[in-house]
Amino acid sequence: MGDDTTLLLVLDLIGTFAFGLNGALTAVRAAQLDLVGVVTLGMITAIGGGIIRDLLLGDVPPATFSDWRYLAVAAAGGLIAFLLSQRLDRLAGPIVVLDAVGLSLFAVTGASKALGFGLGVPQAIILGTITAVGGGTLRDVLVRQIPSVLHSGFYAVPALIGATLIVAAIGLGVEGLVATLGAAAVCFAVRMLGLRLGFRAPRPPPGKGAR
Amino acid sequence: MGDDTTLLLVLDLIGTFAFGLNGALTAVRAAQLDLVGVVTLGMITAIGGGIIRDLLLGDVPPATFSDWRYLAVAAAGGLIAFLLSQRLDRLAGPIVVLDAVGLSLFAVTGASKALGFGLGVPQAIILGTITAVGGGTLRDVLVRQIPSVLHSGFYAVPALIGATLIVAAIGLGVEGLVATLGAAAVCFAVRMLGLRLGFRAPRPPPGKGAR
Amino acid sequence: MGDDTTLLLVLDLIGTFAFGLNGALTAVRAAQLDLVGVVTLGMITAIGGGIIRDLLLGDVPPATFSDWRYLAVAAAGGLIAFLLSQRLDRLAGPIVVLDAVGLSLFAVTGASKALGFGLGVPQAIILGTITAVGGGTLRDVLVRQIPSVLHSGFYAVPALIGATLIVAAIGLGVEGLVATLGAAAVCFAVRMLGLRLGFRAPRPPPGKGAR
Repeated sequence: MGDDTTLLLVLDLIGTFAFGLNGALTAVRAAQLDLVGVVTLGMITAIGGGIIRDLLLGDVPPATFSDWRYLAVAAAGGLIAFLLSQRLDRLAGPIVVLDAVGLSLFAVTGASKALGFGLGVPQAIILGTITAVGGGTLRDVLVRQIPSVLHSGFYAVPALIGATLIVAAIGLGVEGLVATLGAAAVCFAVRMLGLRLGFRAPRPPPGKGAR
Repeated sequence: MGDDTTLLLVLDLIGTFAFGLNGALTAVRAAQLDLVGVVTLGMITAIGGGIIRDLLLGDVPPATFSDWRYLAVAAAGGLIAFLLSQRLDRLAGPIVVLDAVGLSLFAVTGASKALGFGLGVPQAIILGTITAVGGGTLRDVLVRQIPSVLHSGFYAVPALIGATLIVAAIGLGVEGLVATLGAAAVCFAVRMLGLRLGFRAPRPPPGKGAR
Repeated sequence: MGDDTTLLLVLDLIGTFAFGLNGALTAVRAAQLDLVGVVTLGMITAIGGGIIRDLLLGDVPPATFSDWRYLAVAAAGGLIAFLLSQRLDRLAGPIVVLDAVGLSLFAVTGASKALGFGLGVPQAIILGTITAVGGGTLRDVLVRQIPSVLHSGFYAVPALIGATLIVAAIGLGVEGLVATLGAAAVCFAVRMLGLRLGFRAPRPPPGKGAR
């Protein structure tokens, strides 16, 4: 149990750092934000999903607030993105990878935590997905973009797959590092493949988008 | 008590389905969203108001998460809207009616639940209204529109009336199906009349809107 | 303790009134909202920060809902702004001052409340800042503006300073009226000075904003 908790914490912190970097870079690119805005948006992206998860689970104050390591890691990601924004601008590839890392880890850790709080299977899967896409959704709303989760089908689907796999694994009694990293790896692979091959979810019949 | 709980649940589920349909159609119309986006926006519209209500009441995990029926009904509404988006596009009238149904039911069930949690009269009325308009407000923010509740006075006012009526009825000892459906019916009638007759709330003195 | 609680309440209510006025005026100016929209946006601006604070602390129903005085004061601010919108339009100066008053008071009362709930020092500082900027951020998102906290560095920084000072004071055993008003006064002074002198937070290297 202690090991599992430590594992979830470490993976959560890695995901937090990846999203902090990603959110801050979004701030540098998409909106003319200053240092405070860049770090703030990085932190919201990094810890927003976990805060929504913990509010819905009733685990308050959220882990982010009772455990300073989340705040430190999220702020570090934001600060590094600001300082290196010139280099990061050329690193679009690694940034997308980091976003997929955060997505994968949060989907899996979010679903695991939800099961641990006694939620049912469909609820745990959905809460894992919310954890994964929540921070990025707050980020997009704050810089006035339509959230990725709404217009880019293959953002939510890999998270759903990852959350489903970990819930299935735990249901089968397969817990710990192997199950967690395995589910996260599948989520990551689906996300990266989807991006590379341009997977798209079905769209409404043509002509319906007009208004 | 058991009957009242069942009644609130059934009315809540009907409202959830109506809002799921409505939110998904909004996604099809207002933004070019794919299947995942359409169903996601339908679900957020359908269960967003109830989630905000339960977070404010401290009833977590929200009913939506501990009871899979909300998730199923919300997803079904979203999916049906996607599948039938060609036909639904011509059904603008029924859609507005469904939205008014959801608004009316959520205003009344939200205020009832708030009273049951020990909130005072003004708080219960406001929380009922928040339940009614919350999902639609999240929907509008996510597709970057000014929320209906802000620019269309006769969206919030019927909800306030419905919530006030049920709180008054419960205060007078009139509970159960008659009071609940009566308050919801008045809310529904005011909303539909307001739409048909173009009721508008007072506006600031002219010239003040300019900037 | 009773006195401190009363003090926090009174300062909170003054901040709530100031933000109610400010949010409603924003509604009159920035978007063509009607009476319901103006009062709603005023109330959300006024009590939004405190609601976010209480949700994160797990103090539900939020003080705003269990204590009608917050609702009354917030609504009064919104209503007054609507009624006097012609005069208020010329009172841009006082409005900015009221916003700074709300920011200062909420930063200090939010951080104090967080300490009282057992949060650590960095968490209390951040939660005070969230309380201070939360309502205005909801306001900006709802009328589709990039939130002040993201693009105007000297909105969050004074709040951080005020929250840090009260946390330091309480840590040193200096509590009550003097510490609270002192920390709020410094926050207020930094905010007003920043506005007058055009303080800006550092920006990313030029050319990085392009996309």
